[in-house]
Amino acid sequence: MPGESDKKQTHHGSLNPNYRIQKQSLKKVDEYVEGILSGNRTVLSQAITLIESSNPDHREMGEEILEKCLPHSAGSLRIGVTGVPGVGKSTFIESLGKHLLEQGKKIAVLTVDPSSSRSKGSILGDKTRMPFLSTHSRAYVRPSPTSGALGGVAGKTREAILLCEAAGFSTVFVETVGVGQSETAVKLMVDIFLLLMLAGAGDELQGIKRGIMEMADLIAINKAEAENLIAARQAKMEYQNALSLFPSQPSGWKPPVLTCSALKGEGISEIWQQVESYFRQTRENGFFEQNRKEQAVFWMRETIESRLRQNFYEHPEIRIRIPQLEKKVAAGKISPVKAAGKLLAQVGKDQK
Amino acid sequence: MPGESDKKQTHHGSLNPNYRIQKQSLKKVDEYVEGILSGNRTVLSQAITLIESSNPDHREMGEEILEKCLPHSAGSLRIGVTGVPGVGKSTFIESLGKHLLEQGKKIAVLTVDPSSSRSKGSILGDKTRMPFLSTHSRAYVRPSPTSGALGGVAGKTREAILLCEAAGFSTVFVETVGVGQSETAVKLMVDIFLLLMLAGAGDELQGIKRGIMEMADLIAINKAEAENLIAARQAKMEYQNALSLFPSQPSGWKPPVLTCSALKGEGISEIWQQVESYFRQTRENGFFEQNRKEQAVFWMRETIESRLRQNFYEHPEIRIRIPQLEKKVAAGKISPVKAAGKLLAQVGKDQK
Repeated sequence: MPGESDKKQTHHGSLNPNYRIQKQSLKKVDEYVEGILSGNRTVLSQAITLIESSNPDHREMGEEILEKCLPHSAGSLRIGVTGVPGVGKSTFIESLGKHLLEQGKKIAVLTVDPSSSRSKGSILGDKTRMPFLSTHSRAYVRPSPTSGALGGVAGKTREAILLCEAAGFSTVFVETVGVGQSETAVKLMVDIFLLLMLAGAGDELQGIKRGIMEMADLIAINKAEAENLIAARQAKMEYQNALSLFPSQPSGWKPPVLTCSALKGEGISEIWQQVESYFRQTRENGFFEQNRKEQAVFWMRETIESRLRQNFYEHPEIRIRIPQLEKKVAAGKISPVKAAGKLLAQVGKDQK
Repeated sequence: MPGESDKKQTHHGSLNPNYRIQKQSLKKVDEYVEGILSGNRTVLSQAITLIESSNPDHREMGEEILEKCLPHSAGSLRIGVTGVPGVGKSTFIESLGKHLLEQGKKIAVLTVDPSSSRSKGSILGDKTRMPFLSTHSRAYVRPSPTSGALGGVAGKTREAILLCEAAGFSTVFVETVGVGQSETAVKLMVDIFLLLMLAGAGDELQGIKRGIMEMADLIAINKAEAENLIAARQAKMEYQNALSLFPSQPSGWKPPVLTCSALKGEGISEIWQQVESYFRQTRENGFFEQNRKEQAVFWMRETIESRLRQNFYEHPEIRIRIPQLEKKVAAGKISPVKAAGKLLAQVGKDQK
């Protein structure tokens, strides 16, 4: 019973104090589901916290909620946004989000930050970076989950996406905050992947590698304003040339390069037109469906592997023995492979 | 008994037919160890194949061999080499290797190729790319292991490094063949990490992101020859400027930028002087030892996680049920999380 696990929670509860669940505020599964389906953002937040919790009881509850919400998350669009720090991802999402809110849509913004397991996320940071969306009645902004090393880079973002969709936020943005590791993780959970770039910032410092450009379904050169305008147009040409050298995408889509100024709201509606055109094309040729199917299978495998790690490292005996063996390994008194074998044998998992 | 597992091997043996172990050629652990310690390259290759095998009996034998070889692998230098395809990594290693052979050293070259699980590696490719080293009596070139998805990007490269060292190849090069995923894996198993670049190739297509530049202990701008010479010197300046903006390394070392022509053997001895200077400095300030200790602990954790995956996916019931459940997940008949839970429960590993 979740209500009884309050004491345990002190050790196992969510690492993020801002999101710790109070005993008195725990609801029943059906209450959460009802709240989510009615679009209640407070209940939605609580449910996501349950799913992110390292308390097994909470996690189990979260999964039950997720199962019941699943049938209600159809017809959504999942949009990944990446680019190096400083490129203006938050301002871009704020601006594009505003544009969609004007069309009557409901939108959610989730962030994936692989570094947050160290820094414990930046709760206030995320909210203040999108002041308009954070306070709008038809928008929902969820700060970086504190995923921890065991949950992998993506943490519970997939689950959070589905809950947002069940709550009626049918356009979901997933923003990568970290550089490097998170792009692939995000690409594997969205329908379209947008890459933001800057003109003339020195590509070697923009953290853009061929692999990431190949993942992009659309490149937007941001901050195309004032004295940057000419450089942005030049960069657009260069990236168009670069993209034309890449092999064609499995979606059959040719990624366009556009310029915009998120700050001034310029070029944003043109970008959205391209996004809609992408969705039209990939729905017609079946890629959209096929991609979601493959993502679901991948998600299953990721869940398995994350649980295997979790079950192992949270095993009481392992928690005691691992620091001892790590010391011995560091001192060269036992080989890493042999030490691993000893630990695995201890929990009887080394079944040959 | 390994000799009895011939039938099983048809299913579980090494994926790479060129390296499949014949029943009649299987030796006893001590024979392998003796052969390796005497520097016999054929026995060394067979032992690496045992370690890479997916046959549990072979793997176990491989681990015993490794344990017995461990005390004999001291005093080695492990050098990682990365850069995008076409930058000339093989020619560079061939050229630097030649330089070291002239000094009387024994060298080994191992490659890490995350894509090889798909392409099953390119056995001939690796050998013909380094014709001089491949045929030299004091050099050993080992093609990409067919790591497979379960072994992770790095596969069994760490184990192979140790066996090479025990066989007297005390300078070991680890070349990354793939782009993107393999750099971090290789960085975590070497003492020094060299990044090869080209001048004027358009950085956005060179696959170089800030993260990889930050990992580099030395940058060499290759193909600094003929009409490239001026561009290479220009690039050297630019990268020096870029590096000066990065935070200082935990090793206390300031990564230098050099130019070279691996093809003509120019600039190679200057690069080696810098490598030696790096080793001198990091040995004196203790970073070398500390780094190896941390790598050993990381290796233990990686071994644990790779075994957890292996034990799970090789479980007979899982092998049967996983394709069925994947179909259901793709068809949306069951959620990925629930399907994962079912599979984990089946092997009794979902211990809460």
